[in-house]
Amino acid sequence: MRILGIDPGYATIGYGVIDTNGNKHKVIDYGVITTPKNENIAVRLAMIYDSMTKIIDKFKPDEIAVEELFFVKNITTGINVAHARGVILLASVHACGRMYEYTPLQIKQAMTGYGRAEKRQIQEMVKMYLNLPQIPRPDDAADALAIALTHAQTNRMAEQFSL
Amino acid sequence: MRILGIDPGYATIGYGVIDTNGNKHKVIDYGVITTPKNENIAVRLAMIYDSMTKIIDKFKPDEIAVEELFFVKNITTGINVAHARGVILLASVHACGRMYEYTPLQIKQAMTGYGRAEKRQIQEMVKMYLNLPQIPRPDDAADALAIALTHAQTNRMAEQFSL
Repeated sequence: MRILGIDPGYATIGYGVIDTNGNKHKVIDYGVITTPKNENIAVRLAMIYDSMTKIIDKFKPDEIAVEELFFVKNITTGINVAHARGVILLASVHACGRMYEYTPLQIKQAMTGYGRAEKRQIQEMVKMYLNLPQIPRPDDAADALAIALTHAQTNRMAEQFSL
Repeated sequence: MRILGIDPGYATIGYGVIDTNGNKHKVIDYGVITTPKNENIAVRLAMIYDSMTKIIDKFKPDEIAVEELFFVKNITTGINVAHARGVILLASVHACGRMYEYTPLQIKQAMTGYGRAEKRQIQEMVKMYLNLPQIPRPDDAADALAIALTHAQTNRMAEQFSL
C-alpha cells in the first residue's frame, strides 16, 4: 500500500510518500510545498490546492494521512494554517478519497511508544524505519514521513474519512 | 455590478447576492448552505466547495466579499470553521477570481456608522438598503447580505485579492 503523509501548514507544507507491506516500509519521495509570503491568501490557498493535486496525481497514494491541528500561540497564523489545512483536506478528498487524521500525540506514540517524545527522537525513528542514511530534511518533510509511518502502523485505529 | 456576500461557517454558510449601482442596491437572492452534522469533515468540506461553485456559476458575481474570522470561545469549532472558510476562499478564487475580505468591525461601521452596533440594527439596515418588506431570514443570510452591502459601499477601502 502507498501512503502519502502530510504535515499541514500555510507557508510550508511537508509531504512524504512511502510504500508499506506489513512491517516493511520503503521511502518513495519526500519534500515540501512552499507558498510566497508576499502573496495574498487566495493565491496561496490556490497554490496549495494545485501542488497537493499534482503530488497525489504523481504518486497515486492509496491513502492519505494528515496531522490534526492543535492551537497555538499566534492565533492569526493559526487561522491561516487552518484555512490551508481545509484546502489540503479538500484536495485529498477530490484526488484520492481516502483521508485519515492523526493527532500529534498519536504520532508520537506510534513512532516512539511515548506520548511526550521530542521531535529529534521521532526523526531518528523515521530514519530507522525507512533505513535512511540520515534524518530527512527539512523538518516538515521528516514530520510528514512520520505521519505516513503512523498511518502504516496504526491505520486500524484511525477514523476513516472517505467519500 | 453584482456582488456575492458570504458569511462563512462549517454547519451553516450564509450567502446573499445583490446588484449595485452607486447608491442603489437590489437583492437578487439569498439563503444558506448547510452541511449534515453526522457527516465527516472531508465530506462536509467537499459539499461546501461544490455548493459555493454552484452558487457562483448560477449568479455569476463580479466580486465576492467574505467576512473574516475572529476567535472564538470553542476552539474546536473555530478550527472547523477556519477549515471551511479556506475552502470557501478557494472556491471563490477558482470560480470568480475577485475576492475581498471584511472584518466584523468594518461591516458594522459600513452598515450603521457605529462599530459596536447590535446584530438587530445591522439587519434593520439590510432591510432598509434593499427595500425589503421584512428582515431576511435566517440570520446567516441577512449577515451575508450585510457583507455584500459593505463591499458595495466601501470597496475602495478593501484590500483586493485577485488571481
